[in-house]
Amino acid sequence: MDRFELISRLKQKSTERIVLLVLDGLGGLPVGGKTELEAAKTPNLDRLAGMSETGLMVPILRGITPGSGPGHLALFGYDPLTYLIGRGILSALGVKFPVRQGDLAARVNFATVDADGNVSDRRAGRIKDEVNRRMCEMIRTIEIPGAEFFIETEKEHRAALIFRGRQFSDQITETDPQRTGVPPLAVEPLDNSEAAKKTASMLNGFLGGVRKTLKDQHPANMILLRGFALHTAIPGFEEVYGLNACAVAGYPMYKGLASLVGMSVIETESGVAPQFAKLAEVWEEYDFFFVHIKYTDSAGEDGDYERKVSVIEEVDRNISTILDLKPSVLAVTADHSTPASYKAHSWHPVPLLLHSKWARCKAGTRFCETDLASGTLSTIQSLDLMPLVMAHSGRLAKFGA
Amino acid sequence: MDRFELISRLKQKSTERIVLLVLDGLGGLPVGGKTELEAAKTPNLDRLAGMSETGLMVPILRGITPGSGPGHLALFGYDPLTYLIGRGILSALGVKFPVRQGDLAARVNFATVDADGNVSDRRAGRIKDEVNRRMCEMIRTIEIPGAEFFIETEKEHRAALIFRGRQFSDQITETDPQRTGVPPLAVEPLDNSEAAKKTASMLNGFLGGVRKTLKDQHPANMILLRGFALHTAIPGFEEVYGLNACAVAGYPMYKGLASLVGMSVIETESGVAPQFAKLAEVWEEYDFFFVHIKYTDSAGEDGDYERKVSVIEEVDRNISTILDLKPSVLAVTADHSTPASYKAHSWHPVPLLLHSKWARCKAGTRFCETDLASGTLSTIQSLDLMPLVMAHSGRLAKFGA
Repeated sequence: MDRFELISRLKQKSTERIVLLVLDGLGGLPVGGKTELEAAKTPNLDRLAGMSETGLMVPILRGITPGSGPGHLALFGYDPLTYLIGRGILSALGVKFPVRQGDLAARVNFATVDADGNVSDRRAGRIKDEVNRRMCEMIRTIEIPGAEFFIETEKEHRAALIFRGRQFSDQITETDPQRTGVPPLAVEPLDNSEAAKKTASMLNGFLGGVRKTLKDQHPANMILLRGFALHTAIPGFEEVYGLNACAVAGYPMYKGLASLVGMSVIETESGVAPQFAKLAEVWEEYDFFFVHIKYTDSAGEDGDYERKVSVIEEVDRNISTILDLKPSVLAVTADHSTPASYKAHSWHPVPLLLHSKWARCKAGTRFCETDLASGTLSTIQSLDLMPLVMAHSGRLAKFGA
Repeated sequence: MDRFELISRLKQKSTERIVLLVLDGLGGLPVGGKTELEAAKTPNLDRLAGMSETGLMVPILRGITPGSGPGHLALFGYDPLTYLIGRGILSALGVKFPVRQGDLAARVNFATVDADGNVSDRRAGRIKDEVNRRMCEMIRTIEIPGAEFFIETEKEHRAALIFRGRQFSDQITETDPQRTGVPPLAVEPLDNSEAAKKTASMLNGFLGGVRKTLKDQHPANMILLRGFALHTAIPGFEEVYGLNACAVAGYPMYKGLASLVGMSVIETESGVAPQFAKLAEVWEEYDFFFVHIKYTDSAGEDGDYERKVSVIEEVDRNISTILDLKPSVLAVTADHSTPASYKAHSWHPVPLLLHSKWARCKAGTRFCETDLASGTLSTIQSLDLMPLVMAHSGRLAKFGA
């Protein structure tokens, strides 16, 4: 029996409310002896930590740095090594495209090809967003027999492409040659299935149409396709946990990830105070609330230690908005670490505080990596979080007699 | 290679003795800032903890609350998600019935049916135990072609029923309609196997016989069957570990669980001092001793914090009886937590102290949840305990050259 089967079998109804507050990229590394969390003045989170289960969580496996997709799937209790969300699907989610089961998605680069048909610039000189949007308009005039497609501007030379309406396969090759001076590659099937052959042939037809449509444009006169991914079924959050869940997230990618598992997406202004206020507004309508704060990660990615510290302090100043709602369970954690000194996502375990009346707690524990490492939960897997919040909210029956 | 294969392959003989002292439901939650273990005066266990490996153990998975069956199987090193012990088998074990491989067991409720054959009371007014025993006597007169059966009184309206002698299947439906005013359900096969069809038909014949036999009785004039479970093979404790093991347990369920894995069951009066004395009595005859103390759990289930504290103190006062025997390895732990504040089994990790001359130890560690959380073993799985006690008693050879 696997984890999902076990949880599905044991799950039971409850009226208790759960808040999962994800401070993206929260975990840090010491600079001058202190991590961002250790440097931040967080009297409220520290007090809460002393009254909570505390620990660190490994998002995937030791040493593995998660992208946002796997990091969040793990938090939602979906094993990221089982539920692989392809890059194309993440791109589509990133532009708020409502992906459906069976859709085939790909990442698009606008590129420049010369008179001989060879790629001369794989990024078409990083065209402006408005040029990208105009090119997408032109491409939308193309027709594919028996299938629909959608192309949506991401940023600069990047766009997302989604095909709908056939038995597609993602077992096909990419068209980006990864160098200049050679033509874009044709799409080839990677296995002998009819689906792969038909998908490759459909895409080659479509790419011929793109070539013709953009031939007089410059510099974006062609597209390169990468990261083909089929959107396959993923068990719904409500089906697995019996939870009526919503996402209070400001950024498209996280709204997309939430909607992928079937959470309702609440429209909200992005920012600590407005998102916490929005949470309070929809409090009566759901029993699970995924609140996603982006700015800890952006500051980390920018290598801006001070800004990351100040975002953490802003969360601390506003946390009472959530506590005043009296959630039965409040988990404060992250999808991955983004140490400002590392300027990127990292593999380091993420901080966790799990507040509930059934918490074993250790007085004096502060909300920072060092204290959490010897917290009551020690180090667990991010996958363990959902069973824990289910248990703490009275939603898991006893296993066996 | 799985865990059992590895252990079986590496196991070697030794004359060192191991005591596994299970204080049922030992783990607690803070009340007024202290868990039951933290409130209890345990000078002997605290001293021992400072000279032992210490930690917490997760019985099944984080967030999962174990019943007694899965909790003990994990302590014995059997993965409870692989070795599922059905409710019917646990009932049979609970009445000390020596279940054999291939037996089909079910839980029985005596019930009342009216003149139209509809259930009017699913518990037959919770008849007295002696009425239950008389009804069982009557049912024993029924004959089933080609099979034997055994029915044993549990308590009030509950009994255990065991069928022996055919290729049975437990892929069959239950007969309890879960409400009154409707007739008991017929047994139906849940798959297309011959075994399921034959088992269903045999049971329906048997239930017809019960109906006839009890028709003039009141209020217990019918039985309802639930929790069908086939007893399938489980590798024996001696086969896996090479240990000659016995159980010094006062309660039927735990004797049953011990005998399920092939331990000898020692008859003993129930209680801390008498069970420890019994252990001393049989000391020369075995090399593994499972000592099960029930009262920590009963106090927890009753929500009686003070009584749980006092049972823990009673164990502490008597622990010298075990230490005087000089076991090579003494593990003191639990099958699950039963915090008095929670009044039920819970998912919280259980305390562990593992005393041996090969222990890495941390002076000053007390035997309580907070200290154990940062003990030398940190938090491990209950499944890890048996390999550890095997290693500490010199029973596991090196793996690989």
